[in-house]
Amino acid sequence: MEGVDYLAGERNKAGFDVNCMKIVWYGSQRDFDISDRMAKLVASDPVFSKENRTMLPRKELFKNTLKKAAYGWKRIRELNLTFEEATKFRTYIDQPAFTDLHWGMFIPAIRGQGTDEQHKKWLPLAQKMQIIGCYAQTELGHGSNVQGLETTATFDPKTDEFVIHSPTLTSSKWWPGGLGKVSTHGVVYARLLTDGQDHGVHGFIVQLRSLEDHSPLPGVTIADIGMKFGNGAYNSMDNGLLRFDHVRIPRDQMLMRVLQVSREGKCTQSDVPRQLIYGTMVYVRQTIVADASVALSRAVTIATRYSCVRRQFGSQNGGPETQVVDYKTQQNRLFPLLASAYAFRFAGQWLSWLYKDVTDKLQANDFSTLPEAHACTAGLKSLTTSATADAIEECRKLCGGHGYLCTSGLPELFAVYVPACTYEGDNVVLLLQVARFLVKTVSQLKNGNKPAGTVAYMGRAEHLMKCRSTVERAEDWLKPSSILEAFETRAFRMVVACSQNLSQFANHEEGFAELSADLAEAAVAHCQLIVVSKFIDKLKEPIPGKGIKQILEVLCQVYALSTLHKHQGDFLATASITPKQAALAFTQLRHLYSQVRPNAVALVDSFNHTDHYLGSILGRYDGNVYPKLYDAAWQDPLNDKDVPDGYKEYIRPLLKNQLHLAKL
Amino acid sequence: MEGVDYLAGERNKAGFDVNCMKIVWYGSQRDFDISDRMAKLVASDPVFSKENRTMLPRKELFKNTLKKAAYGWKRIRELNLTFEEATKFRTYIDQPAFTDLHWGMFIPAIRGQGTDEQHKKWLPLAQKMQIIGCYAQTELGHGSNVQGLETTATFDPKTDEFVIHSPTLTSSKWWPGGLGKVSTHGVVYARLLTDGQDHGVHGFIVQLRSLEDHSPLPGVTIADIGMKFGNGAYNSMDNGLLRFDHVRIPRDQMLMRVLQVSREGKCTQSDVPRQLIYGTMVYVRQTIVADASVALSRAVTIATRYSCVRRQFGSQNGGPETQVVDYKTQQNRLFPLLASAYAFRFAGQWLSWLYKDVTDKLQANDFSTLPEAHACTAGLKSLTTSATADAIEECRKLCGGHGYLCTSGLPELFAVYVPACTYEGDNVVLLLQVARFLVKTVSQLKNGNKPAGTVAYMGRAEHLMKCRSTVERAEDWLKPSSILEAFETRAFRMVVACSQNLSQFANHEEGFAELSADLAEAAVAHCQLIVVSKFIDKLKEPIPGKGIKQILEVLCQVYALSTLHKHQGDFLATASITPKQAALAFTQLRHLYSQVRPNAVALVDSFNHTDHYLGSILGRYDGNVYPKLYDAAWQDPLNDKDVPDGYKEYIRPLLKNQLHLAKL
Ligand SMILES: Cc1cc2nc3c(=O)[nH]c(=O)nc-3n(C[C@H](O)[C@H](O)[C@H](O)COP(=O)(O)OP(=O)(O)OC[C@H]3O[C@@H](n4cnc5c(N)ncnc54)[C@H](O)[C@@H]3O)c2cc1C
Ligand SMILES: Cc1cc2nc3c(=O)[nH]c(=O)nc-3n(C[C@H](O)[C@H](O)[C@H](O)COP(=O)(O)OP(=O)(O)OC[C@H]3O[C@@H](n4cnc5c(N)ncnc54)[C@H](O)[C@@H]3O)c2cc1C
Repeated sequence: MEGVDYLAGERNKAGFDVNCMKIVWYGSQRDFDISDRMAKLVASDPVFSKENRTMLPRKELFKNTLKKAAYGWKRIRELNLTFEEATKFRTYIDQPAFTDLHWGMFIPAIRGQGTDEQHKKWLPLAQKMQIIGCYAQTELGHGSNVQGLETTATFDPKTDEFVIHSPTLTSSKWWPGGLGKVSTHGVVYARLLTDGQDHGVHGFIVQLRSLEDHSPLPGVTIADIGMKFGNGAYNSMDNGLLRFDHVRIPRDQMLMRVLQVSREGKCTQSDVPRQLIYGTMVYVRQTIVADASVALSRAVTIATRYSCVRRQFGSQNGGPETQVVDYKTQQNRLFPLLASAYAFRFAGQWLSWLYKDVTDKLQANDFSTLPEAHACTAGLKSLTTSATADAIEECRKLCGGHGYLCTSGLPELFAVYVPACTYEGDNVVLLLQVARFLVKTVSQLKNGNKPAGTVAYMGRAEHLMKCRSTVERAEDWLKPSSILEAFETRAFRMVVACSQNLSQFANHEEGFAELSADLAEAAVAHCQLIVVSKFIDKLKEPIPGKGIKQILEVLCQVYALSTLHKHQGDFLATASITPKQAALAFTQLRHLYSQVRPNAVALVDSFNHTDHYLGSILGRYDGNVYPKLYDAAWQDPLNDKDVPDGYKEYIRPLLKNQLHLAKL
Repeated sequence: MEGVDYLAGERNKAGFDVNCMKIVWYGSQRDFDISDRMAKLVASDPVFSKENRTMLPRKELFKNTLKKAAYGWKRIRELNLTFEEATKFRTYIDQPAFTDLHWGMFIPAIRGQGTDEQHKKWLPLAQKMQIIGCYAQTELGHGSNVQGLETTATFDPKTDEFVIHSPTLTSSKWWPGGLGKVSTHGVVYARLLTDGQDHGVHGFIVQLRSLEDHSPLPGVTIADIGMKFGNGAYNSMDNGLLRFDHVRIPRDQMLMRVLQVSREGKCTQSDVPRQLIYGTMVYVRQTIVADASVALSRAVTIATRYSCVRRQFGSQNGGPETQVVDYKTQQNRLFPLLASAYAFRFAGQWLSWLYKDVTDKLQANDFSTLPEAHACTAGLKSLTTSATADAIEECRKLCGGHGYLCTSGLPELFAVYVPACTYEGDNVVLLLQVARFLVKTVSQLKNGNKPAGTVAYMGRAEHLMKCRSTVERAEDWLKPSSILEAFETRAFRMVVACSQNLSQFANHEEGFAELSADLAEAAVAHCQLIVVSKFIDKLKEPIPGKGIKQILEVLCQVYALSTLHKHQGDFLATASITPKQAALAFTQLRHLYSQVRPNAVALVDSFNHTDHYLGSILGRYDGNVYPKLYDAAWQDPLNDKDVPDGYKEYIRPLLKNQLHLAKL
């Protein structure tokens, strides 16, 4: 059986060139090549096997993670991988580890907030991994509200040191990844106190463990915060707790790029603009959007391939039953998610352009586009992570009972993904930030301000308030202009309605609080418009390859019309479209599904995920699901014996009516 | 600190009598008393402790489950508990186990499908647990499509036996709970073959394991199917696989209530009506709806209490920060779920009445209401389980980062709950059954048929097609009649629209397949109407107790208006309400939240969940969250040492740049 491709028939149906689509997905031939090479390197190395991961007890899982991290670093050096290659290599190891925070938060924090001298001292140590660092911001009592952190850093002019202290239980650091068992250092956020004055929250480089024997330094209490959602998943990470009992660090370990504390304890702002931190946020959130598209693409790959393998009902004259992918309800649940994976991918690619643009402008001291860039990345982070979390679970349900098995890969994917809705900004808190920006933009229209970037459409206020969709037949919904106008009208009118309602409150902040649920919905509408419009923009570029443009157009339409259908309440409430037009959109969507159907497997093949990276029997490239499910079951430790441990103590006495004699 | 109630202030705010509400929730004083007594019995017994459960490796978890089951049975007998008490007692043990299937599926299957002699022989054995049974229907290749099962039971007239056989890999039984390691017997579903003829799928009692040493009988292959979603959760259950190699059982082990096979192999239908099986289905699904309300109530209790403890932002003049429950976005996410718990509870109570009604009618040979009862239970099963699964995850997100910890209780609640969307009928497959019934009901209207029960409203077709909502001010939405008419209009018009679209297809089945996504949406609309109308009906009963009726009215309105808002697309598309009226509904909803707010904690206290049953630090009755979270962290096995296993092998060589020397 080995070597047979049960999905070959599906693959032959595709109307486009899969190899070209891979390039589109990865952004360039070069990016594809690196990813492909790194994925295969990891997949072919037995040390990186993920088999049985979901069965490992916590301690074994953790030790296995340490091994993979160490071996990974060894390979990275042996193979002389570039920074970019190494980053991908770590991604494909696909097991959350302290290295994620070390490279992804600790080093960037020092780079972003440290002075040149600090860079010189700390970055080489970190980059050679002679120290391992974490990002210790969140506390037991405060996450979203960073300004409410309680840890203190009190300057002691006598010794030229800061005294780091945890004054309350709720001030315990809580959640930082890599903190619990591995990190030797941390960028610790604390309130800066000098001369009895509170200067707000700043970052400090603090050594946490001895570099000789790894024991916590005097005055430092560290532990892991315990099990998190799911098997395997994020439990390979040592999210930690941390308390300080008057721990002293030299003054030069405060990250002083923006604010400096002198030998005398005097604070001075540097001339580095504070807005710089927004640049970093744009960067991090852009990565999160890209990651959302990847997580979603994995879930969709599994659900799509398995939906082609799985047959249920509909056998005629003893022939094979219907592939469940052929049911319209299945398509109506699955294909919008497939389209979303592509939509988020292009939104992510556009964001990485935006980040470069913002950085260039910052360098030229132009801060004008920052608020817009900030709102748009916050919004897209919120939109794409929420949608992806829901979508992974929907993909699991699309697989029926078997999706509930760990070997489907979907439970772990879900459990490891969902915190993305919470970290780097709780998704609801972020939406409210976006809403604030939108309301402000609208309020400034009357001053003649010309909004730019993703809010440029608001400049056409008059048109958007009065226009009517011209859609008359289902096919009219295929026109990008019809789609775009409907999304713009809806978003704009929702923001305007919020603004009008807000103006009825004497106190703007009270109004904002009272109407925040409406505001969050308006923000979602705006963010969906961004995704739709960036997808449409993408299709204006030349995209080579047989059939590529055509099928991407279909996906763009599926994303737009399924979103429109799901939120048709907004579109109708704002009279952006009529009920008739809404019905036509749903009809058109159904026709589009028929165009996606023959391309479905090829569209997920284009993500180029290895079986190792997918980690799913249901999503196997070759579709050889049933024999492999059967074999995998036998790996469970419970199956090492026919008669389970506990039979003598608990089952036999029960069956023999002898429980009164049993020791229980 | 012990003994302090941090939520006392919240409790004092309540405007209704919590003790009376508990009776409403449990249905009667008697039901409350039993539940309360059983819950406390379990909670106070250290053997039933759930602490550390999510950290146990599979084998330990499983052995622990065997122990709890055996000890539970011992206690049940010692305490001489009634059947009803014992059932509750097992519920509060709150750890999925073979006993669930033994009592919940194996025994009922024999009772429902067995003859009187079979009852006499098998039920006493099972009821004394001298045999343990499972319900073995699903196979690797077939779940939803029961008629497609492949296991065969071939009658051999020579020996008067059936030969049970698994002819293909996909015919392996796969999923039955309790099968993998514990069950000695199973009701096995197989195709009945006599004389070369296929008589469809029937149930057979098959012994699987030796009653002496528990080893699988000759020809029987059994194993556990492996890890499932989540920590703890359903992994305490031995869902199993099962293969037969020509296993022989006596003829009288076929369950023959409906179809009999004679000594010669001749098949005869008994005069027992086949519709009887629907009675069982109504019963099982009614339980599932009740369970949905319980699962939802647990999640909502956790999120509500923690939202009152958690403070974030909004400190004024150094005062305390805002409780996150006071944010309107938090209320807009949480309070509809709280209202849903009550709504589903009353729907469940009504269903248990319906079950009795159906049973009475069946006994009187009146099958007229069966299709309606069947559609309505199928629909409510689908609606409530899908909503509950989503709601548990939303509650987790409402708890921010800490919701992601196992000690929040929410990850396990989610993981253990979600398969309810799949078993006992995949939710989408069920919705399509409901839709089929609705379309049929509408098509028969023109014949003058008077629909009854939950589709009675369709009898007012003419009115529903032309009526217009009279809501003019936000308060008008408080009238039950306004709400009901809007929901009826929307549901009816959606079904009619589907019917009209269907009539454009030459082939009805093709049309049904093509339009199935629309049909499923219409079915949801109908089911939501049922929930709303049963809640409204409930409020017509006298309900004693200070403030009870008032707050239940508020919850009913919250359920209805939040559902209306979420699905406003349907209401607007069918012109059941105007955009203006939709906006008024959302405004009214916001006002209602303010009425829920002071009652929130009391409303979840009314569920009467013990801290043991909740299993959540965030949801603790006393609100003493932070110290307990901190203490619990230290229980993780990773924290048994400051320096983790693997330091010497993996961390030190990495820090010391000596990986090339390390054994990896
Ligand atoms: C897996 C994981 C890894 C993490 N890694 C790190 C790390 O490496 N380093 C680190 O420092 N931290 C880390 N964190 C912490 C993370 O950053 C916080 O959990 C996150 O910022 C959310 O904050 P919170 O938990 O305080 O949520 P809360 O703010 O307490 O949220 C609770 C509820 O309140 C609502 N809410 C809060 N404020 C408002 C408001 N103003 N308006 C309306 N609603 C509001 C939220 O929407 C939510 O529903 C991690 C967390 C997780 C889960
Ligand atoms: C935790 C758990 C416990 C279980 N316990 C038992 C047990 O004790 N005994 C037992 O016998 N079984 C048990 N089962 C099996 C369970 O009954 C089946 O998993 C369930 O019936 C769903 O069937 P399936 O897995 O074949 O899903 P499938 O039918 O394969 O579903 C896959 C997808 O196809 C779609 N689909 C299927 N048919 C149609 C259609 N006609 N139209 C549109 N879409 C369709 C579904 O909506 C779904 O999206 C258990 C399952 C679980 C997860």
